[in-house]
Amino acid sequence: MEKKEKLYEGKAKVIHATDDPDLIIQYFKDEATAFDGKKKGIIESKGIANNRISEVLFKYLGGKGIPTHFVERLSDREMLNKKLDIVKVEVVCRNIIAGSLAKRLGKPEGEVLSKPVIEYYYKDDALGDPMINMDHIRVLGLATDDEIAQMRGYTNRINDLLKTFFSERNMDLVDFKLEFGRHKGEILLGDEICPDTCRLWDKSTGEKMDKDRFRRDMGKIEEAYAEVCRRVCGE
Amino acid sequence: MEKKEKLYEGKAKVIHATDDPDLIIQYFKDEATAFDGKKKGIIESKGIANNRISEVLFKYLGGKGIPTHFVERLSDREMLNKKLDIVKVEVVCRNIIAGSLAKRLGKPEGEVLSKPVIEYYYKDDALGDPMINMDHIRVLGLATDDEIAQMRGYTNRINDLLKTFFSERNMDLVDFKLEFGRHKGEILLGDEICPDTCRLWDKSTGEKMDKDRFRRDMGKIEEAYAEVCRRVCGE
Repeated sequence: MEKKEKLYEGKAKVIHATDDPDLIIQYFKDEATAFDGKKKGIIESKGIANNRISEVLFKYLGGKGIPTHFVERLSDREMLNKKLDIVKVEVVCRNIIAGSLAKRLGKPEGEVLSKPVIEYYYKDDALGDPMINMDHIRVLGLATDDEIAQMRGYTNRINDLLKTFFSERNMDLVDFKLEFGRHKGEILLGDEICPDTCRLWDKSTGEKMDKDRFRRDMGKIEEAYAEVCRRVCGE
Repeated sequence: MEKKEKLYEGKAKVIHATDDPDLIIQYFKDEATAFDGKKKGIIESKGIANNRISEVLFKYLGGKGIPTHFVERLSDREMLNKKLDIVKVEVVCRNIIAGSLAKRLGKPEGEVLSKPVIEYYYKDDALGDPMINMDHIRVLGLATDDEIAQMRGYTNRINDLLKTFFSERNMDLVDFKLEFGRHKGEILLGDEICPDTCRLWDKSTGEKMDKDRFRRDMGKIEEAYAEVCRRVCGE
């Protein structure tokens, strides 16, 4: 597989074309940003951990019938993926109140939701990824009703699967963000699944094991990513 | 009808009990607030105009089969209404992009939406009335799915009716906010419908004829409310 021109560079990853028009190489960076890019930093070896964590989780979900863009991990920081026409709707799924939901509803972090809450955000950095609903998605033409229904169905199933997966590794899956894309007429799970995109709390101590340690200057950031990687990879 | 103790005082109205436990008196104030109460002022005679405008609109909608809390207008500033257990979900319906939607989607004010957009907001002043979705409504227990479906159906019908009503009076209905409540097991339209709760633009000149004149310090505020009142009341 030959690495070709850069197609896209995001906050935490770079996408390169390959000599196969259906495949891309996703490179995982150590750069971290928060608060719409207002806070920036480096989390040493984050890219390596996130690549490995994502590999395990994509394989796990794929094995359970969730179609994903994952093909194979190529190196420490590179993953081979199917090329997606990304849906500009980020799907957030929440099991426990934290972060922006605590603020939005005026509720304490840590309150367990009686059922999962799914939220849609317009994937637009310049606008700060605002929350939107189905009517906004329709008038913006971001996705069809069928696509959103499929993404929602996958999200609920992924939530059930990942809650169990993390629980078995002594972590609570608080919330997570998913991105989907179109590939040859199919909706596939894309992006990455890692402590950048999931809130994970240690089941025994309640300690945060995710990007909130960076957002909130809590220290032991690299250690948290490494520990999630160890637990996920079963080392 | 005897006016009894004060039940509630909001930003623009006061609710009093009456000697009939099923009825309340809604008093329309001249006070105006904007930006979650950060901007405050008086719009002279606003209460009188809004009471008369709301009377006409509630009667019109009632005649078209929309159940409302309206019983009768008692005086310049007082309206007799059925007592509601208010649903803490404000329903916003939009035909043309303006205000917070322009900001949220990064689109110019004035762009006509290909179809109406309905948004739900959590009626909570302390939180600044945040936008929410059906999942939030469920976990907060704000309303049942049936109630929301009914409110949504009424909102679409009210939009059709009011668009025509205002258009016949040379005004474009840009967007509006509705509140609903429970009364003896029924969902009724409540609150008021007026230039505080609707954006109205003159069809010929595009001039704003609503609270945006106050929000944005555009002057001729009292004149706009009086002109809407004249057109709505057919004087």
